[in-house]
Amino acid sequence: MFRLKLRKVTILVLSFAISEVFAEDGYRLWLRYDLITNQEILKEYKTAIQSLYIEKQSPTLTVAKTELSMATKGLLGITLGSSGNASSHGTLILGTPSTSKLIASLKLDEQLASSGPEGYVIISADVKGKKCTIIAANNDVGVLYGTFHFIRLLQTQEHITSLAVQSVPRVKYRILNHWDNLDRTVERGYAGFSLWDWHKLPDYIDPRYYDYARANASAGINGTVVTNVNANAQALTPLYLEKFAALAAVFRPYGIRIYLTARFSAPVDIGKLQTADPLNDEVRQWWKNKIEEIYKYIPDFGGFVVKANSEGQPGPQNYNRTHADGANMLAAALAPYGGIVMWRAFVYDNKVPEDRAKQAYNEFKPLDGKFNANVLVQVKNGPIDFQPREPFHPLFGAMPSTPLMMEFQLTQEYLGYATHLVYLAPLFKECLDSDTFSKGKGSFVSEVIDGSLEDHRISGMAGVANIGNDRNWCGHPIAQANWYSFARLAWDPDLTADAIAAEWIKMTYSNQKEVVQTLTRIMMESRETTVNYMTPLGLHHIMGWDHHYGPAPWIKDKPRADWTSLYYHQADSVAIGFERSSKGSNAMGQYNPEVQRMYERVEDCPEEYLLWFHHVRWDHKMKSGKTLWEELCHRYYKGADDVRKMQGAWNSLQGKIDDDRFRQVRNLLAVQYKEAIWWRNACVLYFQTFSGKEIPTGLEKPDKTLEYYKSLEFPFAPGIRPRW
Amino acid sequence: MFRLKLRKVTILVLSFAISEVFAEDGYRLWLRYDLITNQEILKEYKTAIQSLYIEKQSPTLTVAKTELSMATKGLLGITLGSSGNASSHGTLILGTPSTSKLIASLKLDEQLASSGPEGYVIISADVKGKKCTIIAANNDVGVLYGTFHFIRLLQTQEHITSLAVQSVPRVKYRILNHWDNLDRTVERGYAGFSLWDWHKLPDYIDPRYYDYARANASAGINGTVVTNVNANAQALTPLYLEKFAALAAVFRPYGIRIYLTARFSAPVDIGKLQTADPLNDEVRQWWKNKIEEIYKYIPDFGGFVVKANSEGQPGPQNYNRTHADGANMLAAALAPYGGIVMWRAFVYDNKVPEDRAKQAYNEFKPLDGKFNANVLVQVKNGPIDFQPREPFHPLFGAMPSTPLMMEFQLTQEYLGYATHLVYLAPLFKECLDSDTFSKGKGSFVSEVIDGSLEDHRISGMAGVANIGNDRNWCGHPIAQANWYSFARLAWDPDLTADAIAAEWIKMTYSNQKEVVQTLTRIMMESRETTVNYMTPLGLHHIMGWDHHYGPAPWIKDKPRADWTSLYYHQADSVAIGFERSSKGSNAMGQYNPEVQRMYERVEDCPEEYLLWFHHVRWDHKMKSGKTLWEELCHRYYKGADDVRKMQGAWNSLQGKIDDDRFRQVRNLLAVQYKEAIWWRNACVLYFQTFSGKEIPTGLEKPDKTLEYYKSLEFPFAPGIRPRW
Repeated sequence: MFRLKLRKVTILVLSFAISEVFAEDGYRLWLRYDLITNQEILKEYKTAIQSLYIEKQSPTLTVAKTELSMATKGLLGITLGSSGNASSHGTLILGTPSTSKLIASLKLDEQLASSGPEGYVIISADVKGKKCTIIAANNDVGVLYGTFHFIRLLQTQEHITSLAVQSVPRVKYRILNHWDNLDRTVERGYAGFSLWDWHKLPDYIDPRYYDYARANASAGINGTVVTNVNANAQALTPLYLEKFAALAAVFRPYGIRIYLTARFSAPVDIGKLQTADPLNDEVRQWWKNKIEEIYKYIPDFGGFVVKANSEGQPGPQNYNRTHADGANMLAAALAPYGGIVMWRAFVYDNKVPEDRAKQAYNEFKPLDGKFNANVLVQVKNGPIDFQPREPFHPLFGAMPSTPLMMEFQLTQEYLGYATHLVYLAPLFKECLDSDTFSKGKGSFVSEVIDGSLEDHRISGMAGVANIGNDRNWCGHPIAQANWYSFARLAWDPDLTADAIAAEWIKMTYSNQKEVVQTLTRIMMESRETTVNYMTPLGLHHIMGWDHHYGPAPWIKDKPRADWTSLYYHQADSVAIGFERSSKGSNAMGQYNPEVQRMYERVEDCPEEYLLWFHHVRWDHKMKSGKTLWEELCHRYYKGADDVRKMQGAWNSLQGKIDDDRFRQVRNLLAVQYKEAIWWRNACVLYFQTFSGKEIPTGLEKPDKTLEYYKSLEFPFAPGIRPRW
Repeated sequence: MFRLKLRKVTILVLSFAISEVFAEDGYRLWLRYDLITNQEILKEYKTAIQSLYIEKQSPTLTVAKTELSMATKGLLGITLGSSGNASSHGTLILGTPSTSKLIASLKLDEQLASSGPEGYVIISADVKGKKCTIIAANNDVGVLYGTFHFIRLLQTQEHITSLAVQSVPRVKYRILNHWDNLDRTVERGYAGFSLWDWHKLPDYIDPRYYDYARANASAGINGTVVTNVNANAQALTPLYLEKFAALAAVFRPYGIRIYLTARFSAPVDIGKLQTADPLNDEVRQWWKNKIEEIYKYIPDFGGFVVKANSEGQPGPQNYNRTHADGANMLAAALAPYGGIVMWRAFVYDNKVPEDRAKQAYNEFKPLDGKFNANVLVQVKNGPIDFQPREPFHPLFGAMPSTPLMMEFQLTQEYLGYATHLVYLAPLFKECLDSDTFSKGKGSFVSEVIDGSLEDHRISGMAGVANIGNDRNWCGHPIAQANWYSFARLAWDPDLTADAIAAEWIKMTYSNQKEVVQTLTRIMMESRETTVNYMTPLGLHHIMGWDHHYGPAPWIKDKPRADWTSLYYHQADSVAIGFERSSKGSNAMGQYNPEVQRMYERVEDCPEEYLLWFHHVRWDHKMKSGKTLWEELCHRYYKGADDVRKMQGAWNSLQGKIDDDRFRQVRNLLAVQYKEAIWWRNACVLYFQTFSGKEIPTGLEKPDKTLEYYKSLEFPFAPGIRPRW
């Protein structure tokens, strides 16, 4: 009784300390280990977790041990002691059969046989007559992943007394792409500047690098590309290789490999060669030497991402070679070390007067089967460029002999920067769950990506990071969920967006049912809301010039037609939309016939893709019975209205979560509402100049003119491409 | 007995929470309110502080109340209730005579009469027979300053039962200058990027802005210049004025005003005028209108800092007008609103073949008496540019009819960026305590600055901020002390560097005697150590080109002679140093005769200024008996050796302070040692090419060649000037 009383007081003091002395600034991400207040579950955990048994230490197992110590200290308020022989109840047993005789004796062979190099099992078992929990894997990194899974069970207050978990990643390369420049600016970065403090590296190791690694490992990320795809060859000089090596040393115990971006012209830029022709012997030797040098700095270097012959970047086509020639040259030099090439399919040719949506397919489809075994072709989810909504990229399912890697964008270049609450997992899932029909019905994009459809040896998913040096990592507190959900989907594309949201909310905010339900609903609806106030009904690419901030459907007269908004919306006095059926560019023809059939007729094309695929008359009758013009207006207004509803729902959480983050998100939602009105008004007023029709009755008239919206300028909007 | 036991357990839990679950990342600066573990003092405090009485609330008093609540919750573990009538022991009574009848009745008239608009008194007194503590001032902001003083007493564990404190700031404008650009880069910034998230302002208010205001108010800062002196006129457009207004609203209750930098050519840049001639009527009207507009956004706008006709910035001389013409034009437009102009004296003319050290004096001395009453001339501490050591600027004491403002640099442009531990208060004090002899012996720089020497109505001190968006604000944990000590010295230039250090250490690290003593010693010796390994014996301006990182005494052949290193060290085979006596440039002649006499003869010039003032033979006999060459070498080696000693002293603190910050500083000291060796080797090897002499025996030979050091390049070193 005395002890119980004591504990109660302790809890009060602790929670005051958290709420008053430390600001809840979001730095801890989803790795929050605050004392569990549910006494019942706390008791269960304290019984089940009393000591830790690790037979043989390693850097990775030390990381697992440290994390478990932190987690149990925080969540349970206990100091987790080490057990010498696992001979008491409540022992956590961690290890691999090859480094632990105890694990080897537990007859886990069958489960481990199917767990692969990174999978794990978590099992409640009697060991020598004692109730223990076993976290076992074939390699230490699997044990670490299992440990984070186990901690997640505690954070989400699941029962842990009869566990029989097996988890194996579906995708081999689960990678963040940082578009971070050597001057610490971040292209399309809205959460401050680069985490990588290049100047202070390699000697000063920012403690934050460890927290970055913890967060990634906890969600299953196993690789990070630390430099921008718009690459600077100086990154491949010793000055920087030293710095990458220092980061690699931090990340290694967490199972995270470093990758770099290779500027294709590096042999000329820094190598003093006259050419970067991939079939030139000197060039090939230069890369061979350079890669040998890199592996001296970073023995487990992962490989390169390459953006070539795209948006001004040099590439093999400068020498009349193919993308395959370029990729294979690098791949051949990387192969002896186990490195890979991730060659981006995001290319478009400014000389070809062809629908930009078609160009990646046109260039890459003919190269299927021509890439070396350690090349992945990295394809964006849709055929244009990370728009709020795009159909899946037609390359998925079209290159059966090539492992295709998914590239999602977590940073919200086209989705309201870091001030809009947009949960992206529904966008990711929409693409992953799309059926390519490439091997008949049920040939989902997720199965192209995980390699299972064509039985590829390697597979990958890349997320363009939304991480910067803001105190809360992602600028918007809720944007952390985009990092987390990407990582979880890379591990298992079959997870659902709402399940991931609920899990993340429990870890990040609260296990209270009302918080979980309300915030899950807010998050799940947020992406559709954003589509509505930005680009409803299949509209796309109508944002501000260069910085991509805010609406600008009026952009025209730029160096390239396909950098303008007019090119994409094609509005005139009769109709709006890009005709991509056989009557138009026939981009639709790049999909399998079953997919084409879903989209080809205006009458039954799903309305969310209507203006993506068709040029449609303003008076076209929509499913709602409204004309297209009316429906377009209503969607824009609904988008803005739904932000207001989101504000209301968020406000209902006041007092149920900490005040600091409550106020931050409330403040950000006010910005989002303001900007939703901006998008709505600017777009409706602009398209009205074509439709010539009134804004439907019942919808409030914009309080500013189109000229006002056109006059807005943002000379220092963040995230634009570096100028060097 | 039971309660005592309980408390002990509580303390343990709390301290575990701090050390394990929350990283000690330095974010809290010196405003750390962790539970006091000294039971005796805790008891005293709990008796003396039981409730709070504030008769009439205001935004500033609400800030004081909130801060007191946080501080007492954290430090004492109590919830500070409000007292309705101040009728019990242990009441804290806060207020001003005009807003509190109780305060008015306490007969504090005499103390308050001498407290001015910002001063305060803190008095232990019997009020209606109850032991209370009174924090009173003439204005709310004085109460806030008194509150922070009171909290500081608790943090430093001073007794508080018989207080009779009066404190009045000596300097009127106590201002941080942020050299922050509109793209969030920071010129000479080494702690990440700008705190000001311009893109998200004005709508999104980063919680960090409040913590910035708290930190400043706690140390007495009352103004902040939020834009770079190398100014962009776009900052004066409504897009940005809205953002500044949002910041001003945050800072206002903390007694902090916003100032801006005015680009002199703004009437041309953004005003569509053909000229920026300060005597042109249209120009004058443009500024009048612009200033009226600014005050509409920010009613308590403080005024402008101007860098004109210096390093490429436009100014009145472009139109054959004087600095006074330029300053007075702005001052006239600001005067009706109470605004001021801080006109920088950091100018040098690239057409005049004159010792750069003389140019500011030459330009400004003749203008004494020609400035409007609301102009301060802002003078750097020394005549060159924030070198590790400079003699005081000859303008101090030379412009009796003009209020001169001090400009110190907190950001370590020339002092090892944010990786070197250099406590700058000794540098500040060296200047402030210098005797100008302008009104006879005892005419200290500090008395020029605080206005007392010539009885000026206004006075000011500016510190070029070392603050960025790094989690620990200043990059180096110890660099926070430079921000703090600048602020404290602006309040009272007579405080000593070691007393401020001890105070800061107690608040920031620990009240343990050993920690305070050891760290005070480390800090107090750090600046001299840095001078030794960088620029001993009066050397100056021999750092890397443009970025100013690392040693580069070999810099020559640049667009201007006085941007090279050779210009400053003047080394040849016979001698080294810049002759500034009457035998040379006679920069010495700008000082009063008494000062000149201290420096004019090589024989008795203080050795720390020897090569600043004299060109001295390599075989000159120093006080140590060594030749100049030998002494120079020994100083460089001593500098590096003393860093190693500093490392040893720091290591002795392990376990006595938190591990997180202990490790960070240990890591940074390793960088500092490496770079001290770099400075030492590069400089000794380079100067050896002139002296032609061996490195003295007993000193280890550099392990790298001069060519190696010359070959080092840092293409993306942080903090260089913006290119637009």
